[in-house]
Amino acid sequence: MLSGAALLGISAGLDHAIAKSPQSGAARSSGTESDVVPFYGTHQAGVATPAQDYLSFATFDLTSETVEDLRGILQQWTAAAASLTAGQPYAPDPQEPSQPPEDTGEAIDLDPARLTITIGFGPGLFGSPGHDRFGLAHMKPPELQPLPPFQGDSLDPNSSGGDLCVQACADNPQVAFHAVHLFSRIASSAASLRWSQLGFGRTSSTGQAQTTPRNLMGFKDGTDNIRAEDTTAMNDYVWVAPGEGPSWMTGGTYLIARRIKILFDVWDATSLEGQQHTIGRYKLTGAPLGGHDEYDPVELSATAPDGELLIPADAHIRLANPHNNSGERILRRGYSYSEPTEPGTGAIDAGLFFIAFQRSPQRQFIPLQRRLAANDALNRHTLHTSSSIFACPGGASPGGFVGDRLFA
Amino acid sequence: MLSGAALLGISAGLDHAIAKSPQSGAARSSGTESDVVPFYGTHQAGVATPAQDYLSFATFDLTSETVEDLRGILQQWTAAAASLTAGQPYAPDPQEPSQPPEDTGEAIDLDPARLTITIGFGPGLFGSPGHDRFGLAHMKPPELQPLPPFQGDSLDPNSSGGDLCVQACADNPQVAFHAVHLFSRIASSAASLRWSQLGFGRTSSTGQAQTTPRNLMGFKDGTDNIRAEDTTAMNDYVWVAPGEGPSWMTGGTYLIARRIKILFDVWDATSLEGQQHTIGRYKLTGAPLGGHDEYDPVELSATAPDGELLIPADAHIRLANPHNNSGERILRRGYSYSEPTEPGTGAIDAGLFFIAFQRSPQRQFIPLQRRLAANDALNRHTLHTSSSIFACPGGASPGGFVGDRLFA
Repeated sequence: MLSGAALLGISAGLDHAIAKSPQSGAARSSGTESDVVPFYGTHQAGVATPAQDYLSFATFDLTSETVEDLRGILQQWTAAAASLTAGQPYAPDPQEPSQPPEDTGEAIDLDPARLTITIGFGPGLFGSPGHDRFGLAHMKPPELQPLPPFQGDSLDPNSSGGDLCVQACADNPQVAFHAVHLFSRIASSAASLRWSQLGFGRTSSTGQAQTTPRNLMGFKDGTDNIRAEDTTAMNDYVWVAPGEGPSWMTGGTYLIARRIKILFDVWDATSLEGQQHTIGRYKLTGAPLGGHDEYDPVELSATAPDGELLIPADAHIRLANPHNNSGERILRRGYSYSEPTEPGTGAIDAGLFFIAFQRSPQRQFIPLQRRLAANDALNRHTLHTSSSIFACPGGASPGGFVGDRLFA
Repeated sequence: MLSGAALLGISAGLDHAIAKSPQSGAARSSGTESDVVPFYGTHQAGVATPAQDYLSFATFDLTSETVEDLRGILQQWTAAAASLTAGQPYAPDPQEPSQPPEDTGEAIDLDPARLTITIGFGPGLFGSPGHDRFGLAHMKPPELQPLPPFQGDSLDPNSSGGDLCVQACADNPQVAFHAVHLFSRIASSAASLRWSQLGFGRTSSTGQAQTTPRNLMGFKDGTDNIRAEDTTAMNDYVWVAPGEGPSWMTGGTYLIARRIKILFDVWDATSLEGQQHTIGRYKLTGAPLGGHDEYDPVELSATAPDGELLIPADAHIRLANPHNNSGERILRRGYSYSEPTEPGTGAIDAGLFFIAFQRSPQRQFIPLQRRLAANDALNRHTLHTSSSIFACPGGASPGGFVGDRLFA
């Protein structure tokens, strides 16, 4: 009935799309080259990318048991990720009015905002004993085991785990939301959204040019993090090397996500000195206790005149320090989160959605977290409510797709 | 024990604070005058303020029945709001290490980001029949009645209502979060957080210089909204005039909040034409059906050659149009929201946290929403899950506090 009028709208839209497409050489309204993070490459983006400001994270469970469906999802997700990260809609062609739009549309006018999409595989994708769902059991990396229970864990299984994960990061939350929304729609015939998490306020500086942000406890967080530009450290601690596990993981990394709720009732009632002893740093400057500036070396053995350690034995930065962890480091890339208050609690439900990337969970995260879970003074102020591990394969090449070597 | 080292940290922090304080004339790292929205004034800020990018909304229930406690909360909230909106911490003095920090600290290094704080009073503050909790029953505005039930409502009482509300808006979500966190802590001895809501991606342009954003349905939203700079419209439709209700409401306004979940399973499977007929606009351009440009006039009587209305009888923009609502308009100032997926649903839990300001709910929002609830084509794609009304008094003067005229 309205085809005439509708076509007018479509036509106007088409002109608009052409005027904005990179092929035409016209600049986007406020976009710049630096707004685009390349999607294709040796490694997936979103790991060594200086942390964007917003996160939309989701995991999916396969509802199909056909390996072709899994491959199809990864192929379509790859195509979508390549378009979206370049600032293009999923389907740039004029839409057929009688069909549902292929792109959900909420990011149409928005700049790419440094969007990155990072895809990972959960342990369950490789089957369980006696049930090799997709015939991929022989491809399972020995490192990809469900995380062991840690002392004090208070996990919600409904917001942990999953067969696939998608980490969408961008400097605009609507751009990040759009990616997960679209991915959910693309996968819907063969996979179901399991849980999701939005994050804001990156809690780590991962780029050399980034200042250190504060977490919701009010402390600078990530001062001693690995920098994305430090390729030696990235190779030593983050990227899986050839021969470590199955070949499809070469150039990949293991993503560990932990939702860590802050017990604000306790934390906010703790003295400034108590907070500083818990972390091991001064709240205002971020300097290690006994130091003056944020980047002063952490002197673990420094003592006060009375012989007491300046950085207490159970301070977070002491226990997390590489010197106490066989020299191992991890790349932290987490975000603050805040959920609606749980009815009747009167408490703010917020904290840190911790994400870390590492080459070997067995050697890096697991022993570190065992030590923290047993002794960290911070445990009196936090509750770990979600825990997951995913294997993120290396990056895709044009013509290929993320994880394609899994099906070789 | 660590007082020497602690003092070093504090001292370094003090220098830092002095260097950054406005009194010293030194500029903040990247702050500018335009980052500050004045807190004091005839009206509360956050209504006629061009919409910021992020929302942190919370409501509180009084646990005390002493009117002095209510007054104390409002006084302290006012002092905190004046500091925070100016980019200052709640307590700028050097902290006593043995005491909990007065400011929770997560916004210490951040610019004010156009933070506004808008405070409102729920109907319950003025007592219930036979129980005048604070002796304020005689001050209750006749307009401040719980909203009536609307057809199709699916409300969660745990995330509706409350004695007090705080709307914190800023261009940085951490700045907005910090305000509600701090307000919750300040109120904790006499009021308990009831529910809270974060929002991103303003869904209305309320300033003349703002482009129209898209909501999570992918449509431009707010094309025909009242502009904050349109003082005639603000006086006609938003601000309470002298003599309308109790004098403490003069210069105030009524805030109505509705959380509207989008049923993406249905919406995303609807054809482009169906989506456009539901809204009454073209998805790509935002033009009204039959028009060419976003701001083309909405021609409600225009028909196709076959006589059919170009904008269908049940299209959202037809039913919401002032011509069908006795000429009444409202100021929309809502945000998109996204919550963690509810376990087992496989569905994205997201939508619009609708906020509207108006001079008379009885004359403006209620008849409008009755009409929409009964007939709007959009109802097939949405679910209203939260509903609240608050009376926002006029603005505070230096030396006074928000709502002080309530206690006169």
